[in-house]
Amino acid sequence: MAHTVFVLNGPNLNLLGKREPHIYGAETLADIEVACRRHAAGLGLALDFRQSNHEGVLIDWIHEAREKAGGIVVNPGAYTHTSIAIHDALKAFSGPIVEVHLSNIHQREPFRHTSYVSLVAKGVIAGLGSHGYVLALEAMARLLAAPV
Amino acid sequence: MAHTVFVLNGPNLNLLGKREPHIYGAETLADIEVACRRHAAGLGLALDFRQSNHEGVLIDWIHEAREKAGGIVVNPGAYTHTSIAIHDALKAFSGPIVEVHLSNIHQREPFRHTSYVSLVAKGVIAGLGSHGYVLALEAMARLLAAPV
Amino acid sequence: MAHTVFVLNGPNLNLLGKREPHIYGAETLADIEVACRRHAAGLGLALDFRQSNHEGVLIDWIHEAREKAGGIVVNPGAYTHTSIAIHDALKAFSGPIVEVHLSNIHQREPFRHTSYVSLVAKGVIAGLGSHGYVLALEAMARLLAAPV
Amino acid sequence: MAHTVFVLNGPNLNLLGKREPHIYGAETLADIEVACRRHAAGLGLALDFRQSNHEGVLIDWIHEAREKAGGIVVNPGAYTHTSIAIHDALKAFSGPIVEVHLSNIHQREPFRHTSYVSLVAKGVIAGLGSHGYVLALEAMARLLAAPV
Amino acid sequence: MAHTVFVLNGPNLNLLGKREPHIYGAETLADIEVACRRHAAGLGLALDFRQSNHEGVLIDWIHEAREKAGGIVVNPGAYTHTSIAIHDALKAFSGPIVEVHLSNIHQREPFRHTSYVSLVAKGVIAGLGSHGYVLALEAMARLLAAPV
Amino acid sequence: MAHTVFVLNGPNLNLLGKREPHIYGAETLADIEVACRRHAAGLGLALDFRQSNHEGVLIDWIHEAREKAGGIVVNPGAYTHTSIAIHDALKAFSGPIVEVHLSNIHQREPFRHTSYVSLVAKGVIAGLGSHGYVLALEAMARLLAAPV
Amino acid sequence: MAHTVFVLNGPNLNLLGKREPHIYGAETLADIEVACRRHAAGLGLALDFRQSNHEGVLIDWIHEAREKAGGIVVNPGAYTHTSIAIHDALKAFSGPIVEVHLSNIHQREPFRHTSYVSLVAKGVIAGLGSHGYVLALEAMARLLAAPV
Amino acid sequence: MAHTVFVLNGPNLNLLGKREPHIYGAETLADIEVACRRHAAGLGLALDFRQSNHEGVLIDWIHEAREKAGGIVVNPGAYTHTSIAIHDALKAFSGPIVEVHLSNIHQREPFRHTSYVSLVAKGVIAGLGSHGYVLALEAMARLLAAPV
Amino acid sequence: MAHTVFVLNGPNLNLLGKREPHIYGAETLADIEVACRRHAAGLGLALDFRQSNHEGVLIDWIHEAREKAGGIVVNPGAYTHTSIAIHDALKAFSGPIVEVHLSNIHQREPFRHTSYVSLVAKGVIAGLGSHGYVLALEAMARLLAAPV
Amino acid sequence: MAHTVFVLNGPNLNLLGKREPHIYGAETLADIEVACRRHAAGLGLALDFRQSNHEGVLIDWIHEAREKAGGIVVNPGAYTHTSIAIHDALKAFSGPIVEVHLSNIHQREPFRHTSYVSLVAKGVIAGLGSHGYVLALEAMARLLAAPV
Amino acid sequence: MAHTVFVLNGPNLNLLGKREPHIYGAETLADIEVACRRHAAGLGLALDFRQSNHEGVLIDWIHEAREKAGGIVVNPGAYTHTSIAIHDALKAFSGPIVEVHLSNIHQREPFRHTSYVSLVAKGVIAGLGSHGYVLALEAMARLLAAPV
Amino acid sequence: MAHTVFVLNGPNLNLLGKREPHIYGAETLADIEVACRRHAAGLGLALDFRQSNHEGVLIDWIHEAREKAGGIVVNPGAYTHTSIAIHDALKAFSGPIVEVHLSNIHQREPFRHTSYVSLVAKGVIAGLGSHGYVLALEAMARLLAAPV
Repeated sequence: MAHTVFVLNGPNLNLLGKREPHIYGAETLADIEVACRRHAAGLGLALDFRQSNHEGVLIDWIHEAREKAGGIVVNPGAYTHTSIAIHDALKAFSGPIVEVHLSNIHQREPFRHTSYVSLVAKGVIAGLGSHGYVLALEAMARLLAAPV
Repeated sequence: MAHTVFVLNGPNLNLLGKREPHIYGAETLADIEVACRRHAAGLGLALDFRQSNHEGVLIDWIHEAREKAGGIVVNPGAYTHTSIAIHDALKAFSGPIVEVHLSNIHQREPFRHTSYVSLVAKGVIAGLGSHGYVLALEAMARLLAAPV
Repeated sequence: MAHTVFVLNGPNLNLLGKREPHIYGAETLADIEVACRRHAAGLGLALDFRQSNHEGVLIDWIHEAREKAGGIVVNPGAYTHTSIAIHDALKAFSGPIVEVHLSNIHQREPFRHTSYVSLVAKGVIAGLGSHGYVLALEAMARLLAAPV
Repeated sequence: MAHTVFVLNGPNLNLLGKREPHIYGAETLADIEVACRRHAAGLGLALDFRQSNHEGVLIDWIHEAREKAGGIVVNPGAYTHTSIAIHDALKAFSGPIVEVHLSNIHQREPFRHTSYVSLVAKGVIAGLGSHGYVLALEAMARLLAAPV
Repeated sequence: MAHTVFVLNGPNLNLLGKREPHIYGAETLADIEVACRRHAAGLGLALDFRQSNHEGVLIDWIHEAREKAGGIVVNPGAYTHTSIAIHDALKAFSGPIVEVHLSNIHQREPFRHTSYVSLVAKGVIAGLGSHGYVLALEAMARLLAAPV
Repeated sequence: MAHTVFVLNGPNLNLLGKREPHIYGAETLADIEVACRRHAAGLGLALDFRQSNHEGVLIDWIHEAREKAGGIVVNPGAYTHTSIAIHDALKAFSGPIVEVHLSNIHQREPFRHTSYVSLVAKGVIAGLGSHGYVLALEAMARLLAAPV
Repeated sequence: MAHTVFVLNGPNLNLLGKREPHIYGAETLADIEVACRRHAAGLGLALDFRQSNHEGVLIDWIHEAREKAGGIVVNPGAYTHTSIAIHDALKAFSGPIVEVHLSNIHQREPFRHTSYVSLVAKGVIAGLGSHGYVLALEAMARLLAAPV
Repeated sequence: MAHTVFVLNGPNLNLLGKREPHIYGAETLADIEVACRRHAAGLGLALDFRQSNHEGVLIDWIHEAREKAGGIVVNPGAYTHTSIAIHDALKAFSGPIVEVHLSNIHQREPFRHTSYVSLVAKGVIAGLGSHGYVLALEAMARLLAAPV
Repeated sequence: MAHTVFVLNGPNLNLLGKREPHIYGAETLADIEVACRRHAAGLGLALDFRQSNHEGVLIDWIHEAREKAGGIVVNPGAYTHTSIAIHDALKAFSGPIVEVHLSNIHQREPFRHTSYVSLVAKGVIAGLGSHGYVLALEAMARLLAAPV
Repeated sequence: MAHTVFVLNGPNLNLLGKREPHIYGAETLADIEVACRRHAAGLGLALDFRQSNHEGVLIDWIHEAREKAGGIVVNPGAYTHTSIAIHDALKAFSGPIVEVHLSNIHQREPFRHTSYVSLVAKGVIAGLGSHGYVLALEAMARLLAAPV
Repeated sequence: MAHTVFVLNGPNLNLLGKREPHIYGAETLADIEVACRRHAAGLGLALDFRQSNHEGVLIDWIHEAREKAGGIVVNPGAYTHTSIAIHDALKAFSGPIVEVHLSNIHQREPFRHTSYVSLVAKGVIAGLGSHGYVLALEAMARLLAAPV
Repeated sequence: MAHTVFVLNGPNLNLLGKREPHIYGAETLADIEVACRRHAAGLGLALDFRQSNHEGVLIDWIHEAREKAGGIVVNPGAYTHTSIAIHDALKAFSGPIVEVHLSNIHQREPFRHTSYVSLVAKGVIAGLGSHGYVLALEAMARLLAAPV
């Protein structure tokens, strides 16, 4: 039976592709969702793809994942660097977690160099744009098949 | 006439007892509420016991307490360490505040060693598990009887 | 045609005037809104004046401003010092941003000395009480007339 | 058979009630001892209540407790923040330890914000005045009855 | 009778408009003085507008203001970040002080992020270019009319 | 024509699989090389897979890559955190660079939390074990096909 | 009637004059006591001159001073930099306190640059050798005559 | 023959006694000069008593002292904490230097806790008000009589 | 004639062997003393082996050693990290000092990573258990035979 | 036509050669000026060689250089480490700047290890004594001949 | 059968005895090797004594020790403070490790106060000159006889 | 007889001129060597000009210089900021050392602002491109002629 994977996206990611397309590219979060769904199908994974600007909503969804998902792919946006509450919610999730960042956060402002999520994620993928989501799903498929 | 006390619980506390019972024990937040209600009755206190994962909801409730409560017992969970906004909301509450933590936060990760809430609470009780709530209510009863 | 300006207020500002009037004065946020509206009329600006205690709601509103507003006047309250997510939302807004603080945050606790919002605002006005909002609108009118 | 609990008080606590009674109240350490004894009786605990200004004497007493006490309630006064030696002595005590502070040390000078004792105590109670001792005894009774 | 306001400018501000006009604009300090005088007339304020590159001269002038001025608008240039002596001189001035910066100092090098002057100023206005001086005079007029 | 990719491995990676196999698994660096070669073939990439414990040798190889490789996948081992010289060598390489770590370095000692290599790499993949190399090659294939 | 002044000396000061006389001079603590007594007589002060290597003893003596002394001259030796407990004891003393150091502690190791005692002393005299005690007594005489 | 001592006063000390006399007392710098002259006469010292708000002038005077003075008593005001240049000028003076502060700088803001002048002064006297000048002259007389 | 060596042990070392023997081993401080005496005899050294939990007593003993001992072997326990007073006492001892720690303090909590005693000791031996004392005596014998 | 170069010297450099000649050598600032003039002649440069102890005067001179000089050689003395105002003045100078220090400032006190001037200078020469000025002029001649 | 012990020496130790013999003594690394060999014979240990200035070579040797040695005595010279790679190599060695330093590194520059090697060594011996090697071999003999 | 000077170049300097010539210029390390040789001839110096990417090789060469060279000009590249081992090797060289950097390292990333080499070099020249080597040779010639 197919594993369900939650793909959770944090604040401002809903603006992707709409904001300065000459810089960030024309790809929207919906485009990423399509690419993920296509790839997930090949990997035998079911997806639940969501986005919210609300820290509390993201926590609620992570709790919900405890019942419904085998793994979580998460791009927590700016909450990466400030939310111990999301860290705690993820810590209470027993399946594998893969953290994704579109940009290489280590090349940005110092306040983006630390991640509360990396402290609880199995793997971290950064700087590879939307392709990072696809790689995260591949990693997830493997982790669900043969958990460490 | 009985004082009403708000007992406010922050993010992830709704998972209590459901998450790794062999570690955290089988006691749920509902169990703690029951114990608090029983004890409050003996102390002549009325309780309003709530939980939310949303920082903004917790702030709204603290504002609401200005009209409805004589005191606040608060376990702000991970927001303890990051929310200046909750700090500010509590500062605008004129009654006594008692901060409770299930675990001894000083023995955990460094990012849990500081508390914005301790800066505005009258008293702090940590590390005594769910019994800490009961002790907080006793302290509250005394503070409401003879405010400093 | 008149520019629309969003005036966004963060957590606890709804308590203004209700909390310790002998200290903070009797002026409420509604009073500030009235003063702003009167002044905006003279400057040929339309106002959308809002307040929320929820970080996520403030982010949603900033996104909404991308469609509806020419500029944003923002008093982010305590989120000033902790919200990289609001910083990111504002960064995706192409019009001018003016940050306002009622008090001089540099004379308060050290944790109020840094502002993630100042990193993306055009101008900052602090310490001048409610009059700071009026000055911010004047600055906004000028910035909208002759953007740098 | 009744458990014996050592209640150990550190430097300057002998001045309690004698120093600026209009500020700290008229309650002396002897008064606190009386309140503790009365409460301990109800809880079925025997008390050994002591005070010293000498770090070495406090260490000796903690060693003595290894033979004579089931638990330790300790208010280490200023040694809280500077004494790794008391930390080490307490660490070698196998029963439960509850740390008490009359004032909320988090609202005082920065050099009072860290505690070497909190690193080895089961629970911490601060800011609740002399009532904190009573609550500590209640917590102790429960911990001795059902150790975690 | 009209209040006199000292408008004091610190080091390198004499170069304004002469240095890289394609970047900083063609507006000189003399132009700013003209705009200030025009606006001050409408507000019923008399101006004494000065500039010096010498820390000691600025201190002398602030002392002089004790006799001659009701308020001080000050742009201390680079001394903002290094001069405790100017801080002390301003502290001894009993009228309102408004600090102005042409640029948003929070977006520049870290050594420009702290201000000894903000610690003693009533209000701070930054990032709004020469218009910041005009807004500062408006704020000053209001502060002199109804001091807090 | 096939792109050549250098896969460079830093100090102690030659011990992989030989050291505590019950902990790190029985997979050796040779096994990883085999998996990489198999995957690279499918992606149309030629591989040059090397390991050295010598910082200088790694720098020489990176220089060599300027002539011979289209991209570099690098696991710099402990030099990640200490070698500005490797950082500089990589900076002089014009093709894409993907940094790989077997473990999630953010969950290890603080001195492993910073990376001089992340400052010059396009993408970073950590915590996914040997599978991270395969994902890095996939990312590399895409980057070489459509460079940003 | 003559005021009594406690002159309290901390650890290692008993070695004065015995240790490396070619460096520290041949003057012993007894010599300093003699000089102090002679000078005190002229100032109408009675002296109680003591030394201890024990932090707890020094605290006991400061408590004793509450009953017996009008002022305290204290050279706390190395406890200057580490003892919050002595700081607290001195804070509970209502008369004037003058802190003396034989050497200029600001020219020694960094761990001697901070003083918990300076935070509660009225005056501080350092670097003037044994003459510093005499100056401290002069200052004390004046402070006892005309307290601020 | 009488030694000449320069008594040099830094920024804002010219305001002494004129600024908030109910707080700082009515004593002016001129009064302190009179007290110093009277005391110096008794000690057989000639005085040259000066004040400037200009760092450069203070440096010039310290250089002048190389020819004309046997010792320097200096109250550098706020330059204490910021002027390495005054530090260097004093270092080139071969006679004894005594630093004086009216207030106990260790009890004020953190930026007043370090002194570049203490690094080159023989002795430091702080917190004893204008009497500190008199004590400094006594110390100076002794140092000039029997240099270490 | 045989040199006398003081072997001084700090706080909590009296518990050795009595505390959790399954962890720390069954060897007591008395056992170590026996091993030291046996080894010292072979090296021609006389031993004075002592332990105290009191900082002041340890200082007194170090002073006593000035008359009676040629060298000091010291395990200052937790005072290693906090006692500048013991540092000062040891500095006034002219013979060689060897510091011993049973455990490797660099592998324990950060607050055990610095040593005031290492700043004045000739040699440091850590992590070698009770055998470290024997090695320290060997080193001492050699240092006393041929002082550097 | 010959370029004019300003050679500006900061505080205390007027003492050169007069102060402890056995340490700093007998060479005065006038001697350095002579050596510079001789060397400048050979390089086809006109010199304007000045010294001041006043920060403001140095800033005025740097402004003057905007009209009169092609390049600036500057030894800012102690202002190197404290003056953002000199930094700003130099930044507004469009020609090349070479910073010179007689001593190697990296081997002196930590507060001399940072330089605000290095942030705006083209080149830095330190530790080579008065010869450093000559080398700076050579560098200047080359920079004026072939600006980067 | 005799255990083999690797004695590995890091950078610059080849200069021992050749460099400033009046300071470091005339003893060369060859002399130390002789002393070690003599002592090892008595302890029943076989030695492999090596030195390299190359970090990579030292790592190769530590890997080689995995096959050939029962224990490692290591003086990593300056790599002590900078090489995480040597730390990692040592961590993969299963036998006991004793770290030796000729000088007491805690009394030298701050950048020599931390050791990556101490984090993985069983014991540390510092400040006892070449005798430290002999003591390390004694410790090693004991550790190999009775591993903890 | 001519002095021999070692000119030692660290990692990545072999890429000079080959890497992004439009940025760094077309000048190669070989070109710099030619310029150095020509200039050295005029100064009567013999050159030994080398480059290595290996820290250990650079140390070996510095040791070799003890026999063969009168002085060392060194551009340690990235090892400037990380190699205590090179620092130690240079410290054991008795002749003069001049450190050269092509760029002004103070204007680059913070991790390039500190130099272990500056702590042992006589002089430092930075930011003057390849001309810095020539100036370093001039300084060296003078230092060898008249050592300080």
